[in-house]
Amino acid sequence: MKFVVIGGDAAGLSAASKAKRMYPDLDVIVFEKTFDVSFSACGMPYNIADPLRGIDDLVVRSADVFRNKQGIDLRLNHTVESIDREAKVVHGRSDGKEFSESYDKLLIATGARARSLPLPGMDLPGVLTLRALDDGRAMKRYLAENTVRSAVIVGSGYIGLEMAEALCARGVGVILPEVRTEILPWLPLEMSKLIIEELECKGAQVMLGVDLTEIRRTDKGLQVVTRDSRLDVDMVLIAVGVEPRSELAANAGLALGPYKAIAVDKYLRTSDPNIFAAGDCADAFHALTGARVWIPLGLRANRTGWLVAENLLENKTEAPDIVGTAVFKTFGYEVARTGLSVGEAETAGFQAVDTYIKSRSRAWRQPGAEDLWVQLVADRSTEKLLGGSIVGKEGAAHRIDSIAVALHAGMSVTEFFNCDMAYAPPFGPVWDPMLTCANVLLTNLKKASTAEKPPIMEP
Amino acid sequence: MKFVVIGGDAAGLSAASKAKRMYPDLDVIVFEKTFDVSFSACGMPYNIADPLRGIDDLVVRSADVFRNKQGIDLRLNHTVESIDREAKVVHGRSDGKEFSESYDKLLIATGARARSLPLPGMDLPGVLTLRALDDGRAMKRYLAENTVRSAVIVGSGYIGLEMAEALCARGVGVILPEVRTEILPWLPLEMSKLIIEELECKGAQVMLGVDLTEIRRTDKGLQVVTRDSRLDVDMVLIAVGVEPRSELAANAGLALGPYKAIAVDKYLRTSDPNIFAAGDCADAFHALTGARVWIPLGLRANRTGWLVAENLLENKTEAPDIVGTAVFKTFGYEVARTGLSVGEAETAGFQAVDTYIKSRSRAWRQPGAEDLWVQLVADRSTEKLLGGSIVGKEGAAHRIDSIAVALHAGMSVTEFFNCDMAYAPPFGPVWDPMLTCANVLLTNLKKASTAEKPPIMEP
Repeated sequence: MKFVVIGGDAAGLSAASKAKRMYPDLDVIVFEKTFDVSFSACGMPYNIADPLRGIDDLVVRSADVFRNKQGIDLRLNHTVESIDREAKVVHGRSDGKEFSESYDKLLIATGARARSLPLPGMDLPGVLTLRALDDGRAMKRYLAENTVRSAVIVGSGYIGLEMAEALCARGVGVILPEVRTEILPWLPLEMSKLIIEELECKGAQVMLGVDLTEIRRTDKGLQVVTRDSRLDVDMVLIAVGVEPRSELAANAGLALGPYKAIAVDKYLRTSDPNIFAAGDCADAFHALTGARVWIPLGLRANRTGWLVAENLLENKTEAPDIVGTAVFKTFGYEVARTGLSVGEAETAGFQAVDTYIKSRSRAWRQPGAEDLWVQLVADRSTEKLLGGSIVGKEGAAHRIDSIAVALHAGMSVTEFFNCDMAYAPPFGPVWDPMLTCANVLLTNLKKASTAEKPPIMEP
Repeated sequence: MKFVVIGGDAAGLSAASKAKRMYPDLDVIVFEKTFDVSFSACGMPYNIADPLRGIDDLVVRSADVFRNKQGIDLRLNHTVESIDREAKVVHGRSDGKEFSESYDKLLIATGARARSLPLPGMDLPGVLTLRALDDGRAMKRYLAENTVRSAVIVGSGYIGLEMAEALCARGVGVILPEVRTEILPWLPLEMSKLIIEELECKGAQVMLGVDLTEIRRTDKGLQVVTRDSRLDVDMVLIAVGVEPRSELAANAGLALGPYKAIAVDKYLRTSDPNIFAAGDCADAFHALTGARVWIPLGLRANRTGWLVAENLLENKTEAPDIVGTAVFKTFGYEVARTGLSVGEAETAGFQAVDTYIKSRSRAWRQPGAEDLWVQLVADRSTEKLLGGSIVGKEGAAHRIDSIAVALHAGMSVTEFFNCDMAYAPPFGPVWDPMLTCANVLLTNLKKASTAEKPPIMEP
């Protein structure tokens, strides 16, 4: 029996490792088109921030460990180009030479790629993206071999904002032109403005409502041309999100879901029962809407890779639905979200009501306290919690998981408000800011806006 | 209509304030036996750590604010000594003068007092406890007026360990004689040992299995006498827990619950429907056992005070059950718990199975990562999550609320493991340590101990 995996990153190797542990006699073959496997992609901005760290220290487990210790037939530099579902064979190319391999069960774990922009100049030297380990390697080389004093980062999502911090740490002046009139549009505007203030305060310049028209090479370096200005910089990072690598699946006639991710069922099977898909190339069901969504994140890739192994021979373990919990850090701020934003909730047909509050990260008069902002979203008719976001200099990142657990449990705002949470002065007010926000949201939901003021939340 | 409140701290004043907001015409009278109201009791160790801060900056709202802005008839230095339930009158004393006050509805919010020890020498000058603001005031005065180079702290619970840090910060050498052979017995032994190592490393000396016999005055200062040694120190803090101030209620014939706390129903009514009890003097129902428990903590006091106002005229809002979530900091460590410990779960009739794991507070190769220890407790037959504890130098405090929410939701270990949690390298591994622990616990629960190793949890 032969299990073939296309893609040697989180999902692919989680599946391969677990399958080999579960069925030691199974032939497990992994095709990876690069020379890199098993690395912490999310760690790249932090690695790039430090010129003294080699990019390869992000590798968690080397190819030899997978081969020699785990008995996985891991083939690097092997690109699978087509799947013959009738014959159950994959065809590909390695160093120009064609190869073919038959399979009994196949996993497509091809991940996602950095999105490009339809701009002239995208292929100029110094115009970089960040997705594969080789991208990080290229960026570190570029930073080492060139005098990079300034950079434009196009895209102000997680990667863009993490890289703004990383490049500033290396003394690079950063400009972030953003086509929208705000950043992080899923946050309440006032909360996203905090991040802009922080970026500006740390020396990264944010330009809102800016349309890029071209990137070109001048005698001074690179020039990013917008409708109103020309930005002369030494490097450009394109960080405008990712898109699923699903062409291989689509060409094999497999069904795609939203955003062209590969559609999978609860057991991670594609429309062909012998072919699984997992990780950033596959879609998922949202716990709150039941709808197919595509939210490519690291935990999901690891989890689904592993579940593919569990479901290899029989439908054994359903993949859990997701709520899209995510967090990142940019400079001094932790920014976290889970569930549906107001816009997403409305699109999904909920009557979204949201509230955000400003509280504190520590108790009354506790030294070191910082502002902590919490937003919660609920459905007006059922009063069910739908989502939330937290922004602050401390205590935002880990709090978000409480809201995520509440979403998985289908809690109402009242049920969440009734949770018995921890309190000690170094860690928050007596009423945790999430509870305070839930209480204000309850008031809003009940529209008892006249007599009832928010309760006293201290000491 | 007259609402009388006995006790002017968190529960009493939350109730008084909310009742007055809900019913502006209500006569609200609060009797407080000290001169202090509305202060952050939990903030005292942090205040004491800093000789430059006055103790009164822990006061959140002054008596005048309650009187003049909120219209509450707040009477300081008034000790209620008896309740005549037939006549619906309370009797008491202020500066030696007797007073009486009738009520329609009464709230007993008398809080808890520091437990004492049956030892000779408990009343010597320099033998202190810490509960009321006056206790903090006395300790700051003692530290200011005496040369305090060394102290014994009897009791190694939250207050004892917070005060060890506070006194060390003031240059006081601390010795902690502990009668048990471990500290924090609800933690797995290996996790509680981390705290002992931290205390010793920061210069606080822990003595385990030590029986105190006496405290006495010598010409060198105070001497704490144990069976095997004599500890000469300048100050002694007795921090062996608290007990409910329920004598007033008991003498009025009201029913008491566990640990002699005042028994209340879900609407916070005592056995007399016109008398409520709330805060540290009252009991509560545990969400996991349904049993009455007494876990006096700040959030509960604020929450129940407020709910008394809601339920003053009709049974309107049930007080939520509790899971006993708590957190404290001692030196570099955050220590958090929620739900039932293994011992508590077994006492409650569960077949407790627990697992603890050592993970990391940040991702693979992320600078600044610290060990993070997570324990989860579950019931073997239902696989329901029963509790958990987290210890670490970062990321322990706020994670505990996720487990608390899961307990409130009645989640199984699998359901908790299936939660979609946040990941970014500065905040944890891809698999959050709580998920890793849940997964190992599942393996233990399933006793599939032979073939199945824990899954790969990185990168």
